[in-house]
Amino acid sequence: MIAAFLLVLSAIVFQGDLGLFISVSSFLIVIGGVLSVTVVNYSLGELKNAWVSLFENLKNSEIDLRTDIELMNMFARKVRREGMLAVEEDIQNIEDSFLRNGFMFVLDGMQKDTLNSILNDQLENTERTMEKSVRILASMADYSPAFGMIGTVIGLILMLQNIQDPESLGIGLAIALLTTLYGTIFANMIFLPLSGKLDNLSEKHITKRQMYKAAIISIVDEENPRIMENKMLNFLPPSERAEYMAYFDKNSFDKNREEKIYEKWKNYQNKSWQNLVADLATG
Amino acid sequence: MIAAFLLVLSAIVFQGDLGLFISVSSFLIVIGGVLSVTVVNYSLGELKNAWVSLFENLKNSEIDLRTDIELMNMFARKVRREGMLAVEEDIQNIEDSFLRNGFMFVLDGMQKDTLNSILNDQLENTERTMEKSVRILASMADYSPAFGMIGTVIGLILMLQNIQDPESLGIGLAIALLTTLYGTIFANMIFLPLSGKLDNLSEKHITKRQMYKAAIISIVDEENPRIMENKMLNFLPPSERAEYMAYFDKNSFDKNREEKIYEKWKNYQNKSWQNLVADLATG
Amino acid sequence: MIAAFLLVLSAIVFQGDLGLFISVSSFLIVIGGVLSVTVVNYSLGELKNAWVSLFENLKNSEIDLRTDIELMNMFARKVRREGMLAVEEDIQNIEDSFLRNGFMFVLDGMQKDTLNSILNDQLENTERTMEKSVRILASMADYSPAFGMIGTVIGLILMLQNIQDPESLGIGLAIALLTTLYGTIFANMIFLPLSGKLDNLSEKHITKRQMYKAAIISIVDEENPRIMENKMLNFLPPSERAEYMAYFDKNSFDKNREEKIYEKWKNYQNKSWQNLVADLATG
Amino acid sequence: MIAAFLLVLSAIVFQGDLGLFISVSSFLIVIGGVLSVTVVNYSLGELKNAWVSLFENLKNSEIDLRTDIELMNMFARKVRREGMLAVEEDIQNIEDSFLRNGFMFVLDGMQKDTLNSILNDQLENTERTMEKSVRILASMADYSPAFGMIGTVIGLILMLQNIQDPESLGIGLAIALLTTLYGTIFANMIFLPLSGKLDNLSEKHITKRQMYKAAIISIVDEENPRIMENKMLNFLPPSERAEYMAYFDKNSFDKNREEKIYEKWKNYQNKSWQNLVADLATG
Amino acid sequence: MIAAFLLVLSAIVFQGDLGLFISVSSFLIVIGGVLSVTVVNYSLGELKNAWVSLFENLKNSEIDLRTDIELMNMFARKVRREGMLAVEEDIQNIEDSFLRNGFMFVLDGMQKDTLNSILNDQLENTERTMEKSVRILASMADYSPAFGMIGTVIGLILMLQNIQDPESLGIGLAIALLTTLYGTIFANMIFLPLSGKLDNLSEKHITKRQMYKAAIISIVDEENPRIMENKMLNFLPPSERAEYMAYFDKNSFDKNREEKIYEKWKNYQNKSWQNLVADLATG
Repeated sequence: MIAAFLLVLSAIVFQGDLGLFISVSSFLIVIGGVLSVTVVNYSLGELKNAWVSLFENLKNSEIDLRTDIELMNMFARKVRREGMLAVEEDIQNIEDSFLRNGFMFVLDGMQKDTLNSILNDQLENTERTMEKSVRILASMADYSPAFGMIGTVIGLILMLQNIQDPESLGIGLAIALLTTLYGTIFANMIFLPLSGKLDNLSEKHITKRQMYKAAIISIVDEENPRIMENKMLNFLPPSERAEYMAYFDKNSFDKNREEKIYEKWKNYQNKSWQNLVADLATG
Repeated sequence: MIAAFLLVLSAIVFQGDLGLFISVSSFLIVIGGVLSVTVVNYSLGELKNAWVSLFENLKNSEIDLRTDIELMNMFARKVRREGMLAVEEDIQNIEDSFLRNGFMFVLDGMQKDTLNSILNDQLENTERTMEKSVRILASMADYSPAFGMIGTVIGLILMLQNIQDPESLGIGLAIALLTTLYGTIFANMIFLPLSGKLDNLSEKHITKRQMYKAAIISIVDEENPRIMENKMLNFLPPSERAEYMAYFDKNSFDKNREEKIYEKWKNYQNKSWQNLVADLATG
Repeated sequence: MIAAFLLVLSAIVFQGDLGLFISVSSFLIVIGGVLSVTVVNYSLGELKNAWVSLFENLKNSEIDLRTDIELMNMFARKVRREGMLAVEEDIQNIEDSFLRNGFMFVLDGMQKDTLNSILNDQLENTERTMEKSVRILASMADYSPAFGMIGTVIGLILMLQNIQDPESLGIGLAIALLTTLYGTIFANMIFLPLSGKLDNLSEKHITKRQMYKAAIISIVDEENPRIMENKMLNFLPPSERAEYMAYFDKNSFDKNREEKIYEKWKNYQNKSWQNLVADLATG
Repeated sequence: MIAAFLLVLSAIVFQGDLGLFISVSSFLIVIGGVLSVTVVNYSLGELKNAWVSLFENLKNSEIDLRTDIELMNMFARKVRREGMLAVEEDIQNIEDSFLRNGFMFVLDGMQKDTLNSILNDQLENTERTMEKSVRILASMADYSPAFGMIGTVIGLILMLQNIQDPESLGIGLAIALLTTLYGTIFANMIFLPLSGKLDNLSEKHITKRQMYKAAIISIVDEENPRIMENKMLNFLPPSERAEYMAYFDKNSFDKNREEKIYEKWKNYQNKSWQNLVADLATG
Repeated sequence: MIAAFLLVLSAIVFQGDLGLFISVSSFLIVIGGVLSVTVVNYSLGELKNAWVSLFENLKNSEIDLRTDIELMNMFARKVRREGMLAVEEDIQNIEDSFLRNGFMFVLDGMQKDTLNSILNDQLENTERTMEKSVRILASMADYSPAFGMIGTVIGLILMLQNIQDPESLGIGLAIALLTTLYGTIFANMIFLPLSGKLDNLSEKHITKRQMYKAAIISIVDEENPRIMENKMLNFLPPSERAEYMAYFDKNSFDKNREEKIYEKWKNYQNKSWQNLVADLATG
């Protein structure tokens, strides 16, 4: 997106004066109009939510599910040997709120059925909220060109007052066209791609939490960590799964490795799996 | 929406004369055209219905289901102890017509199956009516730009008569563009966001009535108020539910609290639950 | 729709000369083009069908199902007492072809299963035909602006021949714009709202015939007229049903009333139920 | 469609010179562009297929299923009396390839289950091919205006070179607008209505073959021709079915009539049923 | 597509100077804008993936499933007689990665159920990836005209600075229109048809792999090669299947032919079946 801006900017600078393209009133008509209309259509809270959700997802966009599988695997083995209470303090350091809450429920000794329905409920709710956020960004992209056009028509009407002066006519038209430019740019370079981005990211996000849910339920069921690992592997795309399985084919699992991971797991949470493996190899 | 209007207005005032942008005939072409065409497409009654439904929903837009749970809970306990007749007079003061009618049917001793099918029937009907209202507002947004364009083309044709006089040409064009401006503004700043708003509000409205239905059926079944409360909690979003449950974890329910609520319940009906709790704490 | 026309007309008359806006060739391009293209897409018969169906539905747009319930109720009681043959002559006077045919089949002694499948078949066919008619009107609305544009481009090309004469240029452009005006008006003020209207009316129409079917089957089954009445009541919207039931709560049914209805039923067929009740009260 | 062309033509001739509207390069840009892009999107074979399928369906657009029922009925009776081999030579003269192949399979002594799955397979394949043909014509209608616009923009750019000469400007603009005119005309007067037409015709075509399939399976099952006739009648629209049944109510079937049909059946294949009946009455 | 380009090119050359239509900055605004916005919406990897997938599919667009049936048939017979290990080396030469991997799994002695679920998994993943690639190309077609418009508005604003000089005005406008031209051409002549093409090709591709899966499972089940052949035949369109079956009706299968195929199978992999048959006949 930054590249796109630079490109359009350089095209402008290359051919003329940047100052020509800056107009506070045009900016206010488009952005102010879009914001206020979106607040009417949804609500201020939901609008804020959409943008917060976008930035949070952008920050954590590098989701590598294999790292999560390794960490969950390590925790499951620990719980199996030493019991749930052994990880009570660690749970506080889990970054993902869904996983942290899930483990808390397990610590509280919640029944499997209740836990299952609560986690499902939270998953559905997250999904609905994210879909709404995507829809809000998309409707901002829909409103943008309309406000661009409103501003241009207002500018045209103002310009047509001074029609006898051909020079000022040109400048009036230029200013009138600015809101159309802003409306089109906001729609196509900001709101639309970001809405698409959030849609893609939210899909990955939901997949991750579905994997977490499968893992939590497996731990409550006191299943063998190996079975849990296999269930989690189903959520990987085939190529990543193949890579993961090939790695463990060569490097059979050992207790030593598990301990190394436990020492540093807080730093691994948002690392890619490649980094984790490399780090373990050197460390 | 008011903000949006102010913004566009200020943009106009900032740059020129407001009088330029007021034209009764342009206004009549757009609004008159949209209204009459909508009346043909639907009917006068349905059009009126759509707007009445919009304003009613806007008035009651601050739906807090937790308040309703508290009130229903209080009523259910009262009915359980003292029987249905003890609340006969209170029922008249319930604002929501669906809930009031439902209680009336219970008072009349209606069978559970009949009651269930009648309430379902009313719910479906409300849903269908609201969807139609949303559709009417959306189709008004669709027709607006078309009438804006019709007015502009009429204006252009009139203007082209006087083409030899360049000055009047400018003013003629300005007037012709006004209907386009009006059509775009009505569509994007009024009809479209209000249609979206009604869609969102009607969803909440339907959820509330589904919760009421679950409560009424539970009372007819003479279930324990606790079970009824749990059923109603399913309709809350997880975060609100967690807050509600956390509150009752700390403040265990007591008879005293119930009576306090009963005294003031008429004022609580449209209050947020936070206010209700605060009011009980101070009162 | 008439109001919409008047409005646009008055806007024109208010500002200029009506003669400016009349052009036979523009009218022919738009209407002729739309009609011929629709005939290609569907067929002449289906196009005629769509408009016939529209006008028939507009004529009978005041459907009040409660009147039908009263009349069917009266017939069912008569048939129960005196047998099907007693109403043989009356059947000829039923206006709705679906109901008349249905009764004929009953008179012919058709089996319930055969009757049921024939009536279902006819219902489905009516539904399919009506959907097609709605689609035809909607596609006429889609084609209109295209032919408006074709005419305008033709007009522009013709106008550009005389570009050295600026005065005739204005008039040429005005004429060229007329087809755009016609195309937009036909689409948004005629075809689109009428298509929407037919859609709404056909829904009511189908509901009415579904109710008739339920009644006919009930009569063949020799069910008690009360049961038939209840089945028919399910097709009413809740508010109308409540009104109907409240009325019979106060005015219990009597033989006298039935006879009064029988005397005048031919005139009641398309009356609203309010009128029927008022007429019985005075008569 | 021919009428539509005549109309637009006469509008042009009425107002100016036809030569103005003919431009080989505009024609090539629009048609050439649309064709080559469609070939990329689909393939040359599929494009040819779409048009062949359109013309074949237009040629046989007067499908009267009642004629087919009479002919199949006659064949079924013949087969029942004299065996399948008696019609071996007649089968070669059946025009519809689906029916002809079906009878061939029966002659070859194919099992019912195999036959059923093969016929279903062919039906599905026909349906898929026809849907693709409809889609190809529709996508040609989508591409047309785009190439019209491309041509116009090219023309505008060329024209703007000679901006100092106002007279040639007009003619340049006229030529530039021609491709827009062509693009709009091709889309709205050719591709779109033909796509809709093919969609409607293919529906009838599929219905006919489904009826054939039911008949073939019935013959293999050695069912009574009367049962086969009833199964085929289900594929008729109610009005046609009523007419057919009313006819045979009055004219009971006789051996003589069957022979008359057998003599001339080759000529009857694409006739309307009314003609067939009239012909039998006179002959 | 090349033809389409030539056509538009020749139209330009025919009427003017090609140099007029080349502008690096216009090209950069449209292509750069579309690329950067697509990278934001999806990701660089997915964008690259879409184009790689497109070119791979174009390279192998001549899929003839009958060739695959012959080759699989030959392998199945070989495996049946000499065991899986006899083809171990041949497997390395299979070009299609899905089929090669599938055979590897069989060699590794994988269980039927595991194999089935792994192959299904890979199929679904391929389908999802391809759908995403189609969507990316389609969204590039959606963004193109928007960037064309952005460039044109920027050009117009720059041009309006020099409004007093009418000659430079024309050239400025011409340059401004270039981005619109580029945007429309990229959308309608490149991105849209290629997106449609990839959609069509991916469908064939998935069908082929579904056929491979059926064959692999059949081999693991140690079914008779004849049964496997029949299962594979279900994936052919009826006309191709008929041709294939007619061929083997006349040329009964013999061991000699199988060996001939085995000798040359590596060259046959992407040949059409007609070529394979012709080659066997001559060789």
